[in-house]
Amino acid sequence: MQEQKLKINAERLKETIEKFADFGRTEKNGVTRLSLSNEDIGARDYLVSCCKELGMSIKVDDVANVYATMAGSEDRPPLVMGSHLDTVKKGGRFDGVLGVIAALEVARTLHDHRIQPKIPFMLVDFTNEEGARFDPAMMCSGIISGKFEKAQMLQSMDSQGMTFGEALAASGYEGDAANRLQEATAYLEMHIEQGPVLESEARSIGIVEGVVGMVNDEIEVTGASDHAGTTPMPMRKDALFAATDAIVLLRKKLNELDSDLVYTMGRMLVAPNIHTVIPNRVTFTLEARHKDMNVVAQVVQAIKELPETLGGCTIKVRKLWGRKTVAFDQTLCDRLEQSAQELGYTYKRMYSGAGHDAQYIADYIPTAMIFVPSLDGKSHCEEEFTDYEDCAKGVNAALDTVLSILSPA
Amino acid sequence: MQEQKLKINAERLKETIEKFADFGRTEKNGVTRLSLSNEDIGARDYLVSCCKELGMSIKVDDVANVYATMAGSEDRPPLVMGSHLDTVKKGGRFDGVLGVIAALEVARTLHDHRIQPKIPFMLVDFTNEEGARFDPAMMCSGIISGKFEKAQMLQSMDSQGMTFGEALAASGYEGDAANRLQEATAYLEMHIEQGPVLESEARSIGIVEGVVGMVNDEIEVTGASDHAGTTPMPMRKDALFAATDAIVLLRKKLNELDSDLVYTMGRMLVAPNIHTVIPNRVTFTLEARHKDMNVVAQVVQAIKELPETLGGCTIKVRKLWGRKTVAFDQTLCDRLEQSAQELGYTYKRMYSGAGHDAQYIADYIPTAMIFVPSLDGKSHCEEEFTDYEDCAKGVNAALDTVLSILSPA
Repeated sequence: MQEQKLKINAERLKETIEKFADFGRTEKNGVTRLSLSNEDIGARDYLVSCCKELGMSIKVDDVANVYATMAGSEDRPPLVMGSHLDTVKKGGRFDGVLGVIAALEVARTLHDHRIQPKIPFMLVDFTNEEGARFDPAMMCSGIISGKFEKAQMLQSMDSQGMTFGEALAASGYEGDAANRLQEATAYLEMHIEQGPVLESEARSIGIVEGVVGMVNDEIEVTGASDHAGTTPMPMRKDALFAATDAIVLLRKKLNELDSDLVYTMGRMLVAPNIHTVIPNRVTFTLEARHKDMNVVAQVVQAIKELPETLGGCTIKVRKLWGRKTVAFDQTLCDRLEQSAQELGYTYKRMYSGAGHDAQYIADYIPTAMIFVPSLDGKSHCEEEFTDYEDCAKGVNAALDTVLSILSPA
Repeated sequence: MQEQKLKINAERLKETIEKFADFGRTEKNGVTRLSLSNEDIGARDYLVSCCKELGMSIKVDDVANVYATMAGSEDRPPLVMGSHLDTVKKGGRFDGVLGVIAALEVARTLHDHRIQPKIPFMLVDFTNEEGARFDPAMMCSGIISGKFEKAQMLQSMDSQGMTFGEALAASGYEGDAANRLQEATAYLEMHIEQGPVLESEARSIGIVEGVVGMVNDEIEVTGASDHAGTTPMPMRKDALFAATDAIVLLRKKLNELDSDLVYTMGRMLVAPNIHTVIPNRVTFTLEARHKDMNVVAQVVQAIKELPETLGGCTIKVRKLWGRKTVAFDQTLCDRLEQSAQELGYTYKRMYSGAGHDAQYIADYIPTAMIFVPSLDGKSHCEEEFTDYEDCAKGVNAALDTVLSILSPA
């Protein structure tokens, strides 16, 4: 069976990855391509020229999401593939852009083989997925799917004091709201895993069934900031010791929950943070993720069960935000699995621990994602790498599924 | 016996405390009087005028330490009393200045009663004790006792970019190195306790036998900063969890040591300190103090026994600095105890957990300190307070001891 499958041009895919990395390439072979920066606009212009060469028609919506469409023989909602071109500061050559390049390579392969799809094939580049320049992340897939108020997002300001609205107006990519992605046959996004699971299990492809739900709380511990030299231990209200005790209590409970649960205390601030003063306030975040919202609820319960006082200090919990698990389209996942099997690729059905544009688009379009392995699980850094062969396998699996949808037997 | 004792003027003492607080008084009745600031120079000028009124002669050394001497009938090394006029930012009305005012009140009482001492009585104001403007603390008692290199200290820079040397030259208080405090009969410093012990035990006076030794280390825990959503728990190297575990290990061991040991993890920095990223580096300080250097050595041993790796992270320890216990003059302490007893005051022989100019002066002059209680143990804040009656008791005990030395029976 395998040899009959249409394949992409793996060498061209690799060259295209490196070509796009030129837009913002750093000294250490990473990429800084903040949303709507000159580098991002350069990459967009190049993307548009590549798509035009294939005869695709270009549209841009009011928040600079770019759509390139290859016409279908039938007037039906398009099959959409894409991701985002923006990166974090000193990010890598794969995160985001690989999903856009995958769509481009699928279009090029269709073009190579003069395949006229029944259903239109659309490539999309979503604006400001990283949120690295303008908070929040996944801003423009969020706007078009009704998660964020556009008016509020336009006010989001970068570190230089420029708003998203100003950057949008200056970009040359501010289009028409009528062009926003609406009804579609399916949305397929390829992305690097950004975690170590596929690599450690030696699998080439992740078939992503959804994005895990999460909770993100801040725990504040308040004590008294007395003199470190003159205050006997029994008379102290040391907020750092109380915070440490709270962390021990939390970890004990969370470690008893489902083994797929991940949780992190990523941010901790100690005040006054002077080596000769007993800390009077410690705040730390606890974020936890699991595909089963019942497990997330158990985390919330464990946090609730923290004592109100510990070591003479008070403990208060504030919910920062949370999100429910997003389940992708099972039919599309099954089709991807079939493609992977027929192509003879190792694969794993899995949930994404990270957020992606796909989770917002999944609200109104049947959606799935394809992951490819991240070397050492690294992303958002210059060392970010995915083997080009794995990239090609991911796009081949996507192509196979795309073909089955575009031109049903 | 008690009624025969000469007493200070308690009302005048209180008024003088409030008068000095006018030099830098804050809205919340605290004091900001950074070393060699306009407020400090105002307080110095006022102090000098008060001393001159008593017929004392004024000398200033090359680092602006001020000496006011009441002549003795015999040409012998002076008995010295004093402390410092500078405060931290938003400090209190007592820390430092009280010891200078105590010396002034002793001089005034001698003057009131036309007592001509055999031994000269000298008041001293040490420059930049707090180190709040120019690092390090106890700078100018440190310079004259050979702890710090003057040339290096002159380069110490405040937050406005002015060096100590420049501030010194501009102050009008740069005198002659020949005036530095040299041989003396004794040095006596009264100070607020800056801790809660005297108040909690309802004692009016602390007779300070020395300053506890200490060790101050920094512990660095290094892991890997992977994605909080995509990295399974068993594959993590979470530096915050490892740091928490290290703190638990340390506390367990340190809590088994002598109950007078105090220890503090006052400063902790987490990197990259982003709630969605597993921390890859945590550094925290551990400082511990005890009068018995063997106990301090046990702390050092406990730190040494930390494992080199914990939870996949490496642990490294760096010694920041330490100091040996300084023992004050036992004869002088005994004499102070006798004064307290004869005056019928409650007292406690104790060690200071905080550093003071006296610990440097003790190197070459028989030295002791008197503590008076700090309300709620607070200092270095606007709420800092010591009952005026306790202040008076402290000065009365000092006066009694001073008289016994100045004019031996």
